[in-house]
Amino acid sequence: MSAELKTISIGMLGCGVVGSQVARLLQSDEQELSERSGALLVLKKIGVRSNAAREGINPSMITTDLNSIVNDPEINIVIEVMGGIEPARTLILEAIKNKKSVITANKALLATHGHELFNAADAAKVDLYYEAAVAGAIPIIRSMRESLAGDQITRVMGIVNGTTNYILTKMHEEGRAFNDVLKEAQSLGYAEADPTADIEGHDAAAKAALLASLAFHSTVTIDEVYCEGITGISIDDVNAAKAMGSVIKLLAIAELTVKDEISVRVHPVMLPNSHPLASVRNAFNAVYVESEAAGQLMFYGRGAGGAPTASAILGDLVAVTRHRAYSTVGYGESDYADLDIAPVGDVKSQFFVRLHVADKSGVLAAIAQVFASEKISIQTVRQAGLGSDAELVVVTHAATESSLKGCIKKLTDMDIVSKVESVIRVEGVVA
Amino acid sequence: MSAELKTISIGMLGCGVVGSQVARLLQSDEQELSERSGALLVLKKIGVRSNAAREGINPSMITTDLNSIVNDPEINIVIEVMGGIEPARTLILEAIKNKKSVITANKALLATHGHELFNAADAAKVDLYYEAAVAGAIPIIRSMRESLAGDQITRVMGIVNGTTNYILTKMHEEGRAFNDVLKEAQSLGYAEADPTADIEGHDAAAKAALLASLAFHSTVTIDEVYCEGITGISIDDVNAAKAMGSVIKLLAIAELTVKDEISVRVHPVMLPNSHPLASVRNAFNAVYVESEAAGQLMFYGRGAGGAPTASAILGDLVAVTRHRAYSTVGYGESDYADLDIAPVGDVKSQFFVRLHVADKSGVLAAIAQVFASEKISIQTVRQAGLGSDAELVVVTHAATESSLKGCIKKLTDMDIVSKVESVIRVEGVVA
Repeated sequence: MSAELKTISIGMLGCGVVGSQVARLLQSDEQELSERSGALLVLKKIGVRSNAAREGINPSMITTDLNSIVNDPEINIVIEVMGGIEPARTLILEAIKNKKSVITANKALLATHGHELFNAADAAKVDLYYEAAVAGAIPIIRSMRESLAGDQITRVMGIVNGTTNYILTKMHEEGRAFNDVLKEAQSLGYAEADPTADIEGHDAAAKAALLASLAFHSTVTIDEVYCEGITGISIDDVNAAKAMGSVIKLLAIAELTVKDEISVRVHPVMLPNSHPLASVRNAFNAVYVESEAAGQLMFYGRGAGGAPTASAILGDLVAVTRHRAYSTVGYGESDYADLDIAPVGDVKSQFFVRLHVADKSGVLAAIAQVFASEKISIQTVRQAGLGSDAELVVVTHAATESSLKGCIKKLTDMDIVSKVESVIRVEGVVA
Repeated sequence: MSAELKTISIGMLGCGVVGSQVARLLQSDEQELSERSGALLVLKKIGVRSNAAREGINPSMITTDLNSIVNDPEINIVIEVMGGIEPARTLILEAIKNKKSVITANKALLATHGHELFNAADAAKVDLYYEAAVAGAIPIIRSMRESLAGDQITRVMGIVNGTTNYILTKMHEEGRAFNDVLKEAQSLGYAEADPTADIEGHDAAAKAALLASLAFHSTVTIDEVYCEGITGISIDDVNAAKAMGSVIKLLAIAELTVKDEISVRVHPVMLPNSHPLASVRNAFNAVYVESEAAGQLMFYGRGAGGAPTASAILGDLVAVTRHRAYSTVGYGESDYADLDIAPVGDVKSQFFVRLHVADKSGVLAAIAQVFASEKISIQTVRQAGLGSDAELVVVTHAATESSLKGCIKKLTDMDIVSKVESVIRVEGVVA
């Protein structure tokens, strides 16, 4: 590269699985990155909790003084890959105050304090980019924010958590129980020792908040996301889905209701095999977007891992560097629409209800009557087993969460119903 | 919208299926577009061949004097949706010379004269954006150019022509012959009265050139793309693919060879059903990208049609408008790598060869010997039929096009071979 190139100095907060890949690629792809960004990108400092040696990284770069990075006047861009709310939030705010552009992969932080951080970036006229925060290497943030800026998004459904998709795939394809597959995933490193954030849907909920904010030009935070995980999904549910030509997936959903409110939620969903999301297997992620003019789009790829996440960060780095060269900034937060969040009870879905009943004459009629009493119409009923162990699988037409809950309460109280085994939402079916 | 907003005036060249949707959306989404672009976007003039009335469009906007648009000092941005090489090329050059940013959906023009046009835009410091030129509403251009700017793309494979994908899907799913499905597609408006550009692969070749240019930061033109269409695909080939657990698709492929050259080509391919592109049905498009850090990505959606294409154009319009507000430009052409095109004879693929042979003892040995003489190793052989009508299906390991051609020549000359029915490349198989 020629000597006339401007140098852009980078400080990085964190050097774990993702940070070490960012550092590696910054070195190995130095020339390409310069050609594409128009500047010489130099990693100057890396802030870590303990300054143990890291392979391939010059020890003189490493510091445990994180404040020295966000306050270094020579550093132009800060990459935050440390995770967690604090001290990440305070450090990013300090970096922005010091006119540094920031690139972060921190979904939990953005889904909680995003509005404060975006406002700060806007006031300081710097970029706050976060492609890596949702679905790893899949360019969903830029696509929704920029490519679809001339369209009206009506719905987003995403498989945005690799751990749970891996578990559900193995349950479906190998007929194994949840706990069995979870243990395997932990031993393979696909699931954390404490898997709560994944299997209870909290990780997906943070991403749902970010997707909803982008799709509907409103600020949506993680505590506004209705969230159910996959710990209640049994192998019987998976097999019942299979028998229906469907598959169970944990989806993050953000959609515009008929009242122009935002429904944003994470929960298991039965999807017909013909739906593009149904064939997304193992730890892969995918985001399905419906918009008025473009119609259906799907984005598929690796949602986690060091190198894929680093790819997203470096794409942002090239963009942010180009903006600095032109003294400009890219797309910031867009919250002009300021839509309300729909109460989850008002949201309509189709439901799958699996229950054990006494196999007596008139049972089906009695049960159908309960659904009718809540004005829920039934699409299909399937009976398996006989005698005291008969199983009914009911799929309803679209009904509100509230009326379904009322119905389940009544069913549970019936003598002929021994147990309501499961209630799972059904999506992607053409009615 | 407030009165303080700057007005950006738009001129449009062409008002067919796409242009009329652009005009419609500019009106119906005026407020959203203003919020997102920071300017009031006003469609001022539409240039057409004949100024017949168009529904929903103020007749005073319509003109047949196309030069009056590109020379109008009040027009800031020109949208070109007229298609064809001339006068589109001259009009776009004139618009750029007059400091107007240009948005075009014209793949044939860019795949032929792109370098000249991008150079002109670069010199005039204006944007030349073209998301709509490849795969309609799918944001593949922005994703490759911006999101993957920090990564090294190694391979792109795309289903980028809806007409041929529709025909191949119907042949596969309904067992119908090529001509039969083509006629149906014509009557449904999915195929043109003269379908040559689609079925011979020329449309896909223009897109392949654009994808290869972007992926490998080099200028690739349509005449450098090796191109084979689908007119030679018989229902017997489709059935043989089915029997192998595969499907035949017309793919645009751009990949980096081991010699760091670009192989760029359009031809039918046998893909295993497990490949993400295999389940892309009917007129849908999808582009599959492999890169060093991100791994495998896929982008799926509607590749044609008025509204989807207009969505891509309006996304570009918001971007270009924002750039004008900041007196900046976005990513231009990137051709620093300047890689050579690999001769198609040097490119390695696996091949499917279907031939009719006399069913005599020693036939298989004799045929295997011919493959061996060209140093092509065989992965599988399958024989169907008996007697004089025996059919052999051979799938080779990776071999160069040149050695395969030599092999086919020898096979054709053999007495025991009555006919070499077809030769189709095989991709996406894990060796």
